[in-house]
Amino acid sequence: MLQIIGERINTSRKELQAAVTERNTEYITNDVKQQIEAGASYIDVNAGARIGHEREDMQWLLEVIVPMSSVPLCLDSPDPEILEMAYALVDTPPLINSISLEKERFDTMLPFLKDKVGKEDKECSIIALCMDDHGMPASSFEIYSRAKQLIEELQGIGMAQDNIYIDPLVQPISTDANKGVMVLEAVRGITTKYPAVHITGGLSNISYGLPERRMINRVFLTLMMGAGMDSAILDPLDNKIIAAIRTADMLLGKDNFCMEYLKNVRAGKIVS
Amino acid sequence: MLQIIGERINTSRKELQAAVTERNTEYITNDVKQQIEAGASYIDVNAGARIGHEREDMQWLLEVIVPMSSVPLCLDSPDPEILEMAYALVDTPPLINSISLEKERFDTMLPFLKDKVGKEDKECSIIALCMDDHGMPASSFEIYSRAKQLIEELQGIGMAQDNIYIDPLVQPISTDANKGVMVLEAVRGITTKYPAVHITGGLSNISYGLPERRMINRVFLTLMMGAGMDSAILDPLDNKIIAAIRTADMLLGKDNFCMEYLKNVRAGKIVS
Repeated sequence: MLQIIGERINTSRKELQAAVTERNTEYITNDVKQQIEAGASYIDVNAGARIGHEREDMQWLLEVIVPMSSVPLCLDSPDPEILEMAYALVDTPPLINSISLEKERFDTMLPFLKDKVGKEDKECSIIALCMDDHGMPASSFEIYSRAKQLIEELQGIGMAQDNIYIDPLVQPISTDANKGVMVLEAVRGITTKYPAVHITGGLSNISYGLPERRMINRVFLTLMMGAGMDSAILDPLDNKIIAAIRTADMLLGKDNFCMEYLKNVRAGKIVS
Repeated sequence: MLQIIGERINTSRKELQAAVTERNTEYITNDVKQQIEAGASYIDVNAGARIGHEREDMQWLLEVIVPMSSVPLCLDSPDPEILEMAYALVDTPPLINSISLEKERFDTMLPFLKDKVGKEDKECSIIALCMDDHGMPASSFEIYSRAKQLIEELQGIGMAQDNIYIDPLVQPISTDANKGVMVLEAVRGITTKYPAVHITGGLSNISYGLPERRMINRVFLTLMMGAGMDSAILDPLDNKIIAAIRTADMLLGKDNFCMEYLKNVRAGKIVS
């Protein structure tokens, strides 16, 4: 089954930022509960949008969410010091969002991760972006090569493949008709070569600049699942994308006796 | 772009059968026009449901449809004599539905096809079902092997790969969670080995026995397109499946500048 990383606890969302600014505990806990209820396997927590307040906002969010969340958290920050503070606050193994091949980011994140390898109760998993100092990948092979380099570096510090989540970085189809195929082929390559590694990422960049974006996003997610993507960062309160996910899970042989599919139909979440 | 074979002219559909029985020309021409308008590349014509009337019903349908259809027809009958009569009536190269490895069907259809090879104006294409006298295929490898045998036999009488449409035969996911993956893997194998061969078929068997079938059918078609299916037999008046098809075409790099996608959005056929 696709692992859903719920993306809603992010201060770049206007309403959420207001709730954080007002220290509105109820708003946050309700939102987290709804995401878990809708099928989130992780709750992403990103407090980066209020400049100069990331540390205190992240700390407050975690103090609210850690005690009430029944699923692990995805700690989302580019700053290893904030991640260190966040890591200390969680009590289940978190997913860290993220490392990349950009030299500065790579060099500061690697020691953070190395230090967590082998921690029995709180070993980290990591989202690794196929980004380097030259920018976004320009071809299927470039995505694959960067993924390979990230996987090898992370294995080099002792991380298991199962703790690595590669984000191939989805780019807008409106700029180049090949941007979809490029990612799909790369994902097929990575999952063939490294079967225990996970593939994740946001999907919505694919539809940038086009109308009816949610349709594009969910059809693309379906194609990505067919290519081997097993995790995605998205809004689990979007019933239509959940319907596509649970249907695709079933069709990809991951839902014995169609139990999850039927559960979602009964809950009114899957409508032809 | 996916080639859509419009399935509506089929006397097993109740309303259509009534129109055929009454020789209601207007009903038939309207239906065909709507299918073409919605994007059909072929119009399937099947007159098999009124026992004892197939020949006269097929003849009447073709006399109505041939003069007004701007797309070629898919002549759908198990009976080579009916197909011979139908073939004589069409004026553009038809798709024939179908041959299989069932001995009797194979032995009667092969001479029919061999006779049409090289006819400059009216060379046939053929839908070849992965069915033999043992019944439906039971594994991905069995689908692949039967497809290979069909392709080699048809090439043996001089047919070009581009004129062969393999139908892998979709089976219900409700009976076995593996039935989706089985077909997807086979399609990937066939299209890798025989890149010029087409993959087609009906999709709706996949959802037999489950609720919200149209959702399952269109998510499965999306996955099949990702695996290499480039044709499907379906009802083009189902806007939601057309929306999924045109979106997937775009994401698979088959819609330069997103023109078809945008055209369908403007026509109100793609709604998030």
